[in-house]
This record gives sequence, structure tokens and C-alpha cells, in this order.
Amino acid sequence: MVKKLLAEFIGTFWLVFGGCGSALFAAAYPELGIGFLGVSLAFGLTVVSMAYGLGHISGAHLNPAVTVGLYIAGRHHIREALPYMLSQILGAVVSASLLYFILSGTGSFIVGGFASNGYGDLSPGGYSLVSVFVAEAVLTFFFLLVIIGATDKLAPQGFGGIVIGLTLTLIHLISIPISNTSVNPARSISQALFAETEALSQLWVFIAAPILGAILAGIVSKYLFVKD
Amino acid sequence: MVKKLLAEFIGTFWLVFGGCGSALFAAAYPELGIGFLGVSLAFGLTVVSMAYGLGHISGAHLNPAVTVGLYIAGRHHIREALPYMLSQILGAVVSASLLYFILSGTGSFIVGGFASNGYGDLSPGGYSLVSVFVAEAVLTFFFLLVIIGATDKLAPQGFGGIVIGLTLTLIHLISIPISNTSVNPARSISQALFAETEALSQLWVFIAAPILGAILAGIVSKYLFVKD
Amino acid sequence: MVKKLLAEFIGTFWLVFGGCGSALFAAAYPELGIGFLGVSLAFGLTVVSMAYGLGHISGAHLNPAVTVGLYIAGRHHIREALPYMLSQILGAVVSASLLYFILSGTGSFIVGGFASNGYGDLSPGGYSLVSVFVAEAVLTFFFLLVIIGATDKLAPQGFGGIVIGLTLTLIHLISIPISNTSVNPARSISQALFAETEALSQLWVFIAAPILGAILAGIVSKYLFVKD
Amino acid sequence: MVKKLLAEFIGTFWLVFGGCGSALFAAAYPELGIGFLGVSLAFGLTVVSMAYGLGHISGAHLNPAVTVGLYIAGRHHIREALPYMLSQILGAVVSASLLYFILSGTGSFIVGGFASNGYGDLSPGGYSLVSVFVAEAVLTFFFLLVIIGATDKLAPQGFGGIVIGLTLTLIHLISIPISNTSVNPARSISQALFAETEALSQLWVFIAAPILGAILAGIVSKYLFVKD
Repeated sequence: MVKKLLAEFIGTFWLVFGGCGSALFAAAYPELGIGFLGVSLAFGLTVVSMAYGLGHISGAHLNPAVTVGLYIAGRHHIREALPYMLSQILGAVVSASLLYFILSGTGSFIVGGFASNGYGDLSPGGYSLVSVFVAEAVLTFFFLLVIIGATDKLAPQGFGGIVIGLTLTLIHLISIPISNTSVNPARSISQALFAETEALSQLWVFIAAPILGAILAGIVSKYLFVKD
Repeated sequence: MVKKLLAEFIGTFWLVFGGCGSALFAAAYPELGIGFLGVSLAFGLTVVSMAYGLGHISGAHLNPAVTVGLYIAGRHHIREALPYMLSQILGAVVSASLLYFILSGTGSFIVGGFASNGYGDLSPGGYSLVSVFVAEAVLTFFFLLVIIGATDKLAPQGFGGIVIGLTLTLIHLISIPISNTSVNPARSISQALFAETEALSQLWVFIAAPILGAILAGIVSKYLFVKD
Repeated sequence: MVKKLLAEFIGTFWLVFGGCGSALFAAAYPELGIGFLGVSLAFGLTVVSMAYGLGHISGAHLNPAVTVGLYIAGRHHIREALPYMLSQILGAVVSASLLYFILSGTGSFIVGGFASNGYGDLSPGGYSLVSVFVAEAVLTFFFLLVIIGATDKLAPQGFGGIVIGLTLTLIHLISIPISNTSVNPARSISQALFAETEALSQLWVFIAAPILGAILAGIVSKYLFVKD
Repeated sequence: MVKKLLAEFIGTFWLVFGGCGSALFAAAYPELGIGFLGVSLAFGLTVVSMAYGLGHISGAHLNPAVTVGLYIAGRHHIREALPYMLSQILGAVVSASLLYFILSGTGSFIVGGFASNGYGDLSPGGYSLVSVFVAEAVLTFFFLLVIIGATDKLAPQGFGGIVIGLTLTLIHLISIPISNTSVNPARSISQALFAETEALSQLWVFIAAPILGAILAGIVSKYLFVKD
């Protein structure tokens, strides 16, 4: 159990370091920056690397919504759920601290919104609360559906980690302009704590919507993937 | 059968939400937008995620031309073909509605052509009807050839979903400037319904050309892939 | 044998249609174009799709230099070599004709260099003959080394097609500015025939250098990959 | 043993030729250049191609920090460590020489920093020594953790090479603006030798930090991946 929690801590650290880090360090670099496409790829690849690197230890959830969805789908023990989620949040926050520290090593560092999620004025494309909530719930619903379906016994074995990671890339390709993309409360918490904007007051959206989407996916998957 | 149709509905919803959604939300975002490259990747990754997530339920066609081509190739039952196609179109249209709803949550939303396909004035690069028709037919021909060939018993097992998804990415890399890339009547119908342009009057091209290409691929594959 | 030659014809048609096509249609589209990165991805994905789609028929060489290298390495019969190469060149030329036809459907089409390869004034970045020759030979050497090594009995089974395709992507990421990247005489011939520049007079480089690199790789691989 | 050393020489040659080469030739090409995203992909794909092409010969370390980390983790013999590292450095330096030679074939070639790593004034984004050191150590720590974890007997078999390569892509997506990304002393040495900046005097950072990160990963992995 300690190894599992350490794996979730390390894995979620990496998701935030790679995903939010690439956004903060490299997305808007003049001329050569990686843009939303590069950030989308980075988020997905953190999951690919951890799914194969640490997946055989903890399952590499790296995300409280994933843990909730897998519990609803009957794929994870309830007694491990809370410790998993706490390890994920802790890993995310420690990672955000390190991002902050590294960024402080440039003379020109301005915190601003950090890589936080938001709606309304804090949405990159100015999307409303309702649009953001719906998008986050729908996207997390599909994220969990793919996680559950692609690791089903009937799916081709071994490919799950690549497919799930690339699905997270796809989710970011769609929605960075909408909400800066969360689908992961741990990721959102870690950034809101450092943001100098009102991100903290909007944080509930990026906890509630992903969890709601994950619960719905867990329910649907019990119908869709259970053998008759 | 109900599970299969639900899977086709969900899968085609996701293809349109991810592919057309990334085009509408993220392609032209100032400075950091994902461009045609990101949209191409997004379309392909919707197929990758559904092939592994739901492929073991319905085969994850997500496209009436694919259903037709697989029927011609002797890989799909005729009695399932029509229900599959209706589920796909329904999923695509519901998805387009949700895209419309989310976009309405920004103050600056203008429908325009939505993510519809077109020729002539409605082609991104101004390609003629003949060029568009030929391109769509040839590209769908190859799409089906890869679908049929990569899921053949002699092909490496398990890789089909990744290969087919990346082939759809490739098809978009080639042809977004030509026709905004269809190769999928369900995708085209869903967008034409919302477009404020003449897209609906051009819709027949994006039904006829992909279906024609798929039928040809089905015929060729019966020669090419059948063991002597 | 007829099926094999048809597969090489279709496959090389697709390599040119996807690779050169994405360059001609989509690379330089204003604001949203796919650039050299997208073209590199497209070339690689043509190989990925054909390796899994048609590889179990002909081996999916799609390139005379590959056929030569595999022959030297003792992996291909000499009596199939010439017909393979002719099918490849024919497929490439027919494909280039179709690209020309589709492009003619825009009012603004200017042939220019088409997607031809070149050195000196015809090199995108102005690289000299010697630089271009060395780069093409070295890159084809590595292309063949990966093809031979990744399909070795000791390499993980089934991954060869993805690895080889992504290696072609890598080769383009490196060298489009140098020579517009050939490593494939069939691809070069097909474009030089249509180019309105002096590409035809430089064509020998894009036959000689890839073939030389492929022969060297075949020789090295006989030492490197043969079990003691 | 000679074959192994030759494989490490060839493989590290390719890592530098593809990774640093794409940076030097293609990253900043006007309008169509591949940017940091393309360079990140190129570095990763050199590892993918060598992992499957030559991995069955030498393990395809291509990096002295990898060799050290695998030794600490108990996955590599000490007596092979030094010859491996020397082959890697030699391959990297010969590759850098060839990059220099090819670049000299343009009239406009200016060496500048070549593709060297640096901190302070030599960091692309102006990051301090401390930020660069910490980033390089953390990133190499995760690189080794993924290498060791993804090749563990409990991880899905055959995927290691793709996952490890894409992890190197991810590392570059994060950190090119910080240090131009090393995580590989051989790569850093090869470029510093040719740079006309003070890169050579900063080289110790790109030897010490990656080695430190690799050693820590080796230690952690002995706890994390050893079965109880």
C-alpha cells in the first residue's frame, strides 16, 4: 500500500510537472514555442510514461476523478480511494511548488494565473460557467469511458496506457481554450493555490464537474462493459 | 444489438466532439492555436480512443462509409448496416448540438460555416467540385483499405486501432485545405445542419464521394486480402 | 506476385499522395498550415498505414532504396527486386499526376518546384551538393538500419511498422530544409517529372545517395544482426 | 561486446544527429519551421528508432546517465559501464562533427551556440544555474524511472521503446526553454565542443545534474520495483 501511494504521489507530481510545466515554460516561447498542441501532447505523455512506468504498481490513476470513476465502475476498492486521492493532491501541490521555484530563476517571472483553470474572465477563450461545467463533465465522462473500456479484458492487451494518454492529449486539444482543461481536480487544486487571480474561488467547478462526469461514466460502463 | 448501437452513438458523438470541436474551439486561437495539424491529430485520436474503448462492443465504425465498406468487403452483416448508420448520424448531430451550445457561452460566437465541408467558395483553399470529389473518394478508398487490411488476421494483432486512427490523422493532414476533410457522411451532415452557409446544398458530395470510395475499397480488398 | 506488385503500386501511390500531397496542399496554408512538422508526420504515417494495411502482402517497401537494402541484407529475393522497384516508381508517378490534377482545381495553382528534391538553389535552405549527398546517404543508411533491425526476430514483434514510419517522420524533421528530404528515389522521380525547375537535372543525387546509403546499411546489418 | 559498443556508438550518433540536427537545420526555418515541438519529437523518435532497431543488441542506452542509472538499479554490469559511456560520447562527437560539416554547406552558416546546453545567459529563457540544475536532475530522475519501470517484467512487454522515446519527447517539451534540455552528458559534450559560446565552461552542470538524477532514480527504483 505504501508503494502504491508513493507511485500515485510520484505519478501525479509528473503529470503536473510535465503538463502544467510545459504550459508555463514552453507554450508561449517567442517564435518556437510549443503552443496548445505541445501542451496537449505533454499532458498525454505524462500519462503514457506513468502508465507503463508505474502502472504495474498502483494502476497510475494520477487523478481523483479517475479513482472515483474506477470505484463506481467496480474496478477499485473503496478503502484505497481516499488515500489515493490524498497522495495525488499532495504530489500535485509539491510539483506546483517546484514549478514555482524553477520559474523564479528567471528575472522576468510573473505568476499571473499560473496554469490554473477558470471560467468567464479566467477562461482563455472567455467561456461561461455553464459552458465550462458542461465541457469538463462531458470530457471527463469520455476520459473515464476510455480508461474503463481500453483496460477491459476484451480490449487488446498492453495498449491501454498509450490509448489513455493520447485520449488526455485529445481532451486538451479540444478544451484548453475553454477552461485551460482540467478533468483532474488534483491538477486544478495545485495551480489555483499559486495563481494570483481568482482561480481559487472557481476551483469548485474543477472538482465538481470532473467528479460528476466520472461518476456518470462509471454508471454507464457498468451497463456497457459487463458481459451479459 | 442495443449495446452496439449505443456504442456507435457514443463513438460518433466523440468523433465529432473531438474532431470538429478542436477545429471550432482551438484551431485558430491567437498565437497558441493548434492549427490544421492539431485538428488532424484530434480527429485521429477520437478513433484511437474509441477503437480501444468501445471497439470490442461494436467494432467502432463511427462512420457510415466505414459500415458500407466493411459490408462490401464481407466483414459486416447487412441487417446491422442501417441501424449502425442511423446511430452514427444521430450521435454526430447530438454532438454538433452540444458544440453549438458550448460555443454560445462566449460572447463572440459567430456560427459561419461551423466545421462544415465544402467545395468551390466553401473549400478552405478554393478547390473545385471535381477536385474535392476525387480527393474525398480517393482518401476514403485508402481509409477503408487500411481499416480492412490492418484488421486482417495476417496483420499484427492489436495495432489496428492505432493505425486506423493515425490514418485518419494523415487524411486530415492532406486534405483540410481541400474540403475541410470529410471521408465521413455523419460528420458532414452534423455540421451542415448548423452552418449558416450553403453547406447543406453541397452535402451530397460528402455522402456520395466517401461512399463511392468505400465501395471501391471493399471490392479491391476482396481481391487483395482473400487468401488464394 | 501480382498481388505483391499491386500492393507496392498502391502503397507507393499513398506515400507520395500523403507525403508530397500534404506538403503541396497544407504545409504553407496561411496561419493554420501544418508546416514541416505536419509534412514529416504525414510521410511517416503513410508508411505506418501501409505497413499494417498491406505489409502482410508485399512487405510494404514503397521505396526502391528499401528494396535494394533488404536485398543486400539477404532479406529479399533478387528476382523480385526489379518488378518491385518498377511498381513503386509507377505508383509514385501516377500519384503525382493525381496531385497535379487536384491542384489544378484551384484558380491559383502554380507548379513551381512541385514537391521535388534539390541541392544548391533548389535546396530549401540552400545546402550544397556535397551536404545534400552526405545527408541523404546517412539518413537512408539509418532508415534501412532501423527497417532491418526493428523487423529482426529478436526485436519486439508487431511494432516494426510504427517504428519504421516514425523513423521516416524523424528523417523529415531533420532534413526537409536540406534537400526537401528524399531517401526514396521513387518519390523524387515522381516530383521531378512535374517540377518546372531544374529538378530533373539534379535527380541523379536522389537516386544515387539513397541507394548508396541503403547498400551500406545492408552490409553493416549483415555484421550487426547476424547471430554469432 | 564489440557489437554492443558499435550499437551504442551508432545509436548515440543518431540521437545527436536527429535531435540536435533537427534543432540546427529545421527548428527556426522561416514560417514552416518545426519549432521546439518538432525538436522534442525528433529527440524522442531517435530513441524509439534505436530502441527497436538496436535495442536487442546493446539495450540502446545512448546516454551515460542511463548507463549509470541502470547500473545503480542493478540492471547493468559495472564492467560494461565505462566502455558503453565512451562509445556513446564518441558517437555523439562524431555526429556533431558531421552536423558541422553539413551546415558548412550553406553560405549563411553561423556556429553560435550550436545546439549546446546552458544556464544564465546561455539558457534560452534565461534560467539561473540553480533552476537549470534542479530541472535537469528532476527530469533525468523521471527519465530513468520510466526506463526502469517500463522495462520491468510486470510492465506490458514490447512497449518500452515507444514509451521511453515519448518520455524523452515530453522532457524536451518541458525544458528546452530552461536549458535547451540535456538529461544526457554525451549529447551536451558533443555540442559544447563546437559552440563558440562559453558552453564548455558550463558543461559540468550537464554532466553532474543528469548523473545525480539517474543515481537517485536507480536508488528509488530498487525500493519501488523490487517484489516483496
